[in-house]
Amino acid sequence: MSNAKLAKDFEKIVGAGNVMHEEADLHAYSYDSAVLDPQVPSLVIKPTTTEQLGPVTKLCNEYGLPMTVRGAGTNLSGGTIPHPGGVVVLTNGLNRILEINEEDLYAVVEPGVVTAQFAAQVASKGLFYPPDPGSQAVSTIGGNVAENAGGLRGLKYGVTKDYVMGMDFYDVNGDLIKSGSRTVKCVTGYNLAGLMVASEGTLGVFSNIILKLVPPPKASKAMMAIFPNVQTASETVAAIIANHIVPCTLEFLDNAVIRYVEDFTKAGLPTDAGAILLIEVDGHQAEVIEDAQKVVDICTKCGAKEVKMAETAEEREALWFARRNALPSLARAKPTTVLEDATVPRSQIPAMMEGLDKIARKYKLDIGTFGHAGDGNLHPTILCDNRDKEEFHRVEEAVDEIFDVALSLKGTLSGEHGIGMAKSKWMEKETSKATLEYSLKMKRAIDPKNILNPTKIIGDI
Amino acid sequence: MSNAKLAKDFEKIVGAGNVMHEEADLHAYSYDSAVLDPQVPSLVIKPTTTEQLGPVTKLCNEYGLPMTVRGAGTNLSGGTIPHPGGVVVLTNGLNRILEINEEDLYAVVEPGVVTAQFAAQVASKGLFYPPDPGSQAVSTIGGNVAENAGGLRGLKYGVTKDYVMGMDFYDVNGDLIKSGSRTVKCVTGYNLAGLMVASEGTLGVFSNIILKLVPPPKASKAMMAIFPNVQTASETVAAIIANHIVPCTLEFLDNAVIRYVEDFTKAGLPTDAGAILLIEVDGHQAEVIEDAQKVVDICTKCGAKEVKMAETAEEREALWFARRNALPSLARAKPTTVLEDATVPRSQIPAMMEGLDKIARKYKLDIGTFGHAGDGNLHPTILCDNRDKEEFHRVEEAVDEIFDVALSLKGTLSGEHGIGMAKSKWMEKETSKATLEYSLKMKRAIDPKNILNPTKIIGDI
Repeated sequence: MSNAKLAKDFEKIVGAGNVMHEEADLHAYSYDSAVLDPQVPSLVIKPTTTEQLGPVTKLCNEYGLPMTVRGAGTNLSGGTIPHPGGVVVLTNGLNRILEINEEDLYAVVEPGVVTAQFAAQVASKGLFYPPDPGSQAVSTIGGNVAENAGGLRGLKYGVTKDYVMGMDFYDVNGDLIKSGSRTVKCVTGYNLAGLMVASEGTLGVFSNIILKLVPPPKASKAMMAIFPNVQTASETVAAIIANHIVPCTLEFLDNAVIRYVEDFTKAGLPTDAGAILLIEVDGHQAEVIEDAQKVVDICTKCGAKEVKMAETAEEREALWFARRNALPSLARAKPTTVLEDATVPRSQIPAMMEGLDKIARKYKLDIGTFGHAGDGNLHPTILCDNRDKEEFHRVEEAVDEIFDVALSLKGTLSGEHGIGMAKSKWMEKETSKATLEYSLKMKRAIDPKNILNPTKIIGDI
Repeated sequence: MSNAKLAKDFEKIVGAGNVMHEEADLHAYSYDSAVLDPQVPSLVIKPTTTEQLGPVTKLCNEYGLPMTVRGAGTNLSGGTIPHPGGVVVLTNGLNRILEINEEDLYAVVEPGVVTAQFAAQVASKGLFYPPDPGSQAVSTIGGNVAENAGGLRGLKYGVTKDYVMGMDFYDVNGDLIKSGSRTVKCVTGYNLAGLMVASEGTLGVFSNIILKLVPPPKASKAMMAIFPNVQTASETVAAIIANHIVPCTLEFLDNAVIRYVEDFTKAGLPTDAGAILLIEVDGHQAEVIEDAQKVVDICTKCGAKEVKMAETAEEREALWFARRNALPSLARAKPTTVLEDATVPRSQIPAMMEGLDKIARKYKLDIGTFGHAGDGNLHPTILCDNRDKEEFHRVEEAVDEIFDVALSLKGTLSGEHGIGMAKSKWMEKETSKATLEYSLKMKRAIDPKNILNPTKIIGDI
């Protein structure tokens, strides 16, 4: 069928002007934030109501047309790169916050609501939505759920999964599936809402999502601990948790990252430090004072040269501004930034850092490492140029080895960036052949024509 | 095939002496804690290692033999009542705690570990496993996961689902499936561990389970607030949360329950009160003092006649002893205790209580209500005698209407007791026909011979 004819059929559902099929438009939706080849879709469809998602999905299924739902396209593993011949369905028109319930501590949102805008609305009601992925300024809640997005607060507050109370989604026939509830407890039927989390658009098309909210902490205190080397910094991470202090944020930057960030942000980071930890504790005022002091003591005992407390809101903001600019700072340095997120139990961070150091030397690569040390979720970032085939081959071998080290330390391939197209080939290594077959059986039964974001997570089937 | 021949085949896997086929043994495993007809299994198999679960499941699948995995059989919805002609697989021999990791805050356990024993082991290491279902003294972690068991701490600490980081389980071919990780963040593949939670043994046979642990609260304070009537007590629940106080426990007992409990326990409950709330706040010492005072103020403002603070450990223990004996106290009163767990958003508790009162009067039934008011999870308990057919018919009609009221208040059929055999007929009312069909497709693909605890959750297929 011609694209023009197809476009007409979808226009009947979403209205004229909401189906794009011009070359320029299609190219804009051919890639996401992963270092992977773009793939131009045949159509881009923009529903204006969640109810249109049902008929759109039904039509895709009837035509056997692969569909990739896209929020902001901030995906780092290729989950929103369309399938050859397929369509992209945009959720950015579905951005209403339907309810923020202050008595029952939940919210109901459409999938295209932007994470930071939602968090701000929630904050304006005196409540708190903790998940804060790096892309929160533009990423959508639907995308966050599809990827189980993490962020800086994962250690204490958990990740997106921990806030999804329920969800409505469409199956391939365009029928509405309901799972979960507005209640804290719900065991009515299979945990399909839980299954949708991290499913990368391969099992259903998300409609309204029910999210848990919590009261905000009453106080917080941020600080920067400066270490002579990576080893002492990473040992400090384990020591803090072993002392039963769970900071809301516990971030790590190695010397390479410190230098790139300082060069970009002029935030006042110590460019001669081997590594720094950025730490924030929160909770009741009295608890915060005690915990902050304990953290200072542990850092000092573990070998920190200095611990700088953020005394004002501006000083605190400067620390987090620096951290949030780690990736953009690295991205300026070289044409290609390969950002990994292999994750290990936090006590294994020293071993993981040692492994990364060996890999960088072995493959003669420039690797800067930063990330969410508190939950073992590091982001070793390889600075390279993917036009240099010989170098990029070394990058690929290094990535392979990074995963081997993470798995040998009882870690995982991906903490928060997803499997997408980038990592599906490694899935069996971490799980088992039977795990992939179990997943495949489920996928085939639910989506027999394989139209829901094909090849993502489980590869070609 | 004769039972004796079958028994021999399973003995080859689990060893002689671990397959029971005598009439008396079989009867002992024909029922659970639900008010449902017993069903005698053809065999009872007791594996002694988790590795035996694979071959046992494979053999059941080869023979097309329905298998029901059973922990302690405390299930309240018939989830552990065997299927006609089927076998029961006992997990009580699989009760090793494999690891309690104090640095990385997780534990790995076999499915038959008893909840309270596990919690005590964790506590002895200075850590905390919060889920505390009413049956915790005997219930198993595997059963808790299969049912997504809740408990008294759900409001602040969540339910079993919130503590399952990962799990290994066997598919019907006896192959091992791996999902989740020892890390806080993990998005490697479908959230199969999350899907297993609340799946009532219908999608896989659980092996080792990875559970999240947290540091324990530093202090706590318990109190009893005495109200003249149900209305003021239930309005107080909503007011506490709306004031951004999240107690670790917030329990409700109406006058009928108070009287039965006092008669049984002599705990000193006020038998003339319309209702009481048992409240405990925990956290940092300073926060606990503040929150406790705020709770007292809110209770008083909402109409409490008195708020009694537990000043000693003994006084605190007496309150929770009384609460934990609510069900046994009611069970003494009449031959049959129909314990429901329809759940509503907590702001709807006043409306739910009003609905329950109307239903009790309409059907001339004795209903005592207690439960986890803080998370909207009430346990209206109908005291009756199921040998009285006319009365039991009224009970069934009343239960129907309880669900209608809960759903009209945006609640759910079951907060924590599961769907099992008892509630599958109401599933479509809360979800949709398409939701059941989606679940069925998944179930059929994963378990084509329908051997994994058939009919539970989704009914006959």
